[in-house]
Amino acid sequence: MLQPELKRRRDKIRVLMAQHGIDAALITCNVNLFYTYGRIISGYLYLPLDAPAHVFVKRPNDIGGEHAHPIRKPEQLPDLMKEAGLPLPKRLMLEGDELPYNEYSRLAACFPDAEVLNVGTALIRQARSVKTELELEMFRRSAAAHAKAYEQVPSVYKTGMTDLQFSIEIERLMRLEGCLGIFRVFGRSMEIFMGSLLAGGNAAVPSPYDFALGGEGVDPSLPGGANGTLIQAGQTVMVDMGGNFYGYMCDMSRVFSVGRLPEKAYAAHQTCLEVQETVAGLAKPGVACEDLYNAAIRVVEKAGWSDCFMGAGQKAKFIGHGIGLEINEAPVLAPRIRQELEPGMVFALEPKIVLPGIGPVGIENSWAVTAEGVEKLTLCREEIVEL
Amino acid sequence: MLQPELKRRRDKIRVLMAQHGIDAALITCNVNLFYTYGRIISGYLYLPLDAPAHVFVKRPNDIGGEHAHPIRKPEQLPDLMKEAGLPLPKRLMLEGDELPYNEYSRLAACFPDAEVLNVGTALIRQARSVKTELELEMFRRSAAAHAKAYEQVPSVYKTGMTDLQFSIEIERLMRLEGCLGIFRVFGRSMEIFMGSLLAGGNAAVPSPYDFALGGEGVDPSLPGGANGTLIQAGQTVMVDMGGNFYGYMCDMSRVFSVGRLPEKAYAAHQTCLEVQETVAGLAKPGVACEDLYNAAIRVVEKAGWSDCFMGAGQKAKFIGHGIGLEINEAPVLAPRIRQELEPGMVFALEPKIVLPGIGPVGIENSWAVTAEGVEKLTLCREEIVEL
Repeated sequence: MLQPELKRRRDKIRVLMAQHGIDAALITCNVNLFYTYGRIISGYLYLPLDAPAHVFVKRPNDIGGEHAHPIRKPEQLPDLMKEAGLPLPKRLMLEGDELPYNEYSRLAACFPDAEVLNVGTALIRQARSVKTELELEMFRRSAAAHAKAYEQVPSVYKTGMTDLQFSIEIERLMRLEGCLGIFRVFGRSMEIFMGSLLAGGNAAVPSPYDFALGGEGVDPSLPGGANGTLIQAGQTVMVDMGGNFYGYMCDMSRVFSVGRLPEKAYAAHQTCLEVQETVAGLAKPGVACEDLYNAAIRVVEKAGWSDCFMGAGQKAKFIGHGIGLEINEAPVLAPRIRQELEPGMVFALEPKIVLPGIGPVGIENSWAVTAEGVEKLTLCREEIVEL
Repeated sequence: MLQPELKRRRDKIRVLMAQHGIDAALITCNVNLFYTYGRIISGYLYLPLDAPAHVFVKRPNDIGGEHAHPIRKPEQLPDLMKEAGLPLPKRLMLEGDELPYNEYSRLAACFPDAEVLNVGTALIRQARSVKTELELEMFRRSAAAHAKAYEQVPSVYKTGMTDLQFSIEIERLMRLEGCLGIFRVFGRSMEIFMGSLLAGGNAAVPSPYDFALGGEGVDPSLPGGANGTLIQAGQTVMVDMGGNFYGYMCDMSRVFSVGRLPEKAYAAHQTCLEVQETVAGLAKPGVACEDLYNAAIRVVEKAGWSDCFMGAGQKAKFIGHGIGLEINEAPVLAPRIRQELEPGMVFALEPKIVLPGIGPVGIENSWAVTAEGVEKLTLCREEIVEL
């Protein structure tokens, strides 16, 4: 990755560090390293406020360059920094929401003269929430590949398939279009394979994970998504695969059916499209996330779908979420979130309704906030597609 | 899962707690919850030394039973424990190597009168390293499914494929045989999709991840495994997919070739099989891991393959590793590891050699330690198979 792009990203973090009186960051979690260094290493990026960043690398063993130094263990950091002519930290931030307690404590102990602050994750995620031009371009490319895979979804369906079999063929389509497969999610309790495919009644099964919808899964060790149910006529299938093509987690859901559905399915789906139109029409820099959420709820209430909006028995308490190197970034479109949209933010908007006896309907697209409004990234037909 | 099985697992942890003078554990990380509760929840399992375990559940919202209580936030724990008639902890262990620093600190602050110890991960992983009969049975089932998928690998190869295209078809085979896809690994810095497929020279590319071999990957955001290289005649392909069929990470590698290979490839492969035979012949309860490692190195040195054993430019410093709910558990077959094998341990043994200009050869199987020796779980032909 080009140095000016990396410098731009590091400077976004430095601005936030300066606001908090922090003079250095030690960055060691994979997505944050990828963000600030352009590649993943086993090691540390030391980011002083007023000096160039240096990396200290355990693995791989082939990294060179003026600002790269080999290291075996973190206790060597202070000496290596001095040798490199770097200022030692006075107020140092670590990735407090990502580093395990024991590793954080070990790193903090390497700098006994520094005040160590646990806000590294929060500030870096804040910086990451507003994308650079290059990141927006990566998202556009991901979205195009994601849409191209989804266009082929009907071609891999065969009568008599289970949700799991259908999912496997769609996973293959995604991979053949370049999807890296790995699904990066923030938070230690969140787990998912490549995404979620929910058919019929399974969409109403509550899950421990805080995704928009649940599903039983096929094994208790991974309780979410497809559960091996037969895909049946008169029911819906929602495909919600993670679109990680270049490191950026594009997000997109589409609904399919076997044969014609009861009329109320189309009505509920139409309500979700109206929610999307309403929210997208309001979304622009300066608008608060909670206002977008509340506008969505008003559309749903007026249409009479409150009971099954964002889940049936267990409901998600958001209609959208920031996306980036992880599927769940800032901002969150949820009640009481006063955060305002900014140009360069990218979010998924996913109004969904779970209909008893039928299954899930609704839509999800990825959107970038522009100077005046929002740009839809995931361009693919939005009606319920008959398989 | 049956209560006696769960009680057995919890009691294994309690024995270790008692040895460390710990009177309670608060367990909240997914694999540890699955191990002790039989399912994954968003919430907490409270495990007192001398009283039954209780769970406090945020999600899903459909968990009932005498010992289950709904909860919104961890600060409610002490009051909810008192209401349930549970003893409050005096010396409480938390999952110090898994919980993020900020979450650990928040949980510890809920128990201001307790001494909080960061050894939860270490003790639970110690308990998990010796499998129960049921866990061994799950591993046998996983291994059978894993082998069944690998037997079909040649059937999905087509001339002119890249390593990535071949990998995608094998991923599909694995999924169709029931593989859950998700690859659970311990340690925040380790990442991989479903596994690794390494063809030709790509096997020598060093990676930041601490797996046995590296590979470039197809994108800098995931630097490991297949890199889009064309599979060529006279080169090898090593398939090393994660065998997570029922939550247990079975591990297995096999080597394939397009056409006949140079003779030294078969010689090097044979050396790896001899390493396997030697180590498996020595392995039994009471044998130290380092002795197994050293025995392997002697075979390799004698055969003259030291330079390219366990990698070329960058080498793995182990020949095997415990497996379980995660791919990297105790014990580790590595230098200076004095830990002794115990009946019920399960490990992967993976002697591999990377040959310049040809690619990787070698073998990996999963083994269970029995009363007298070891049992091979992954039964599938071990020679280099021509595609």
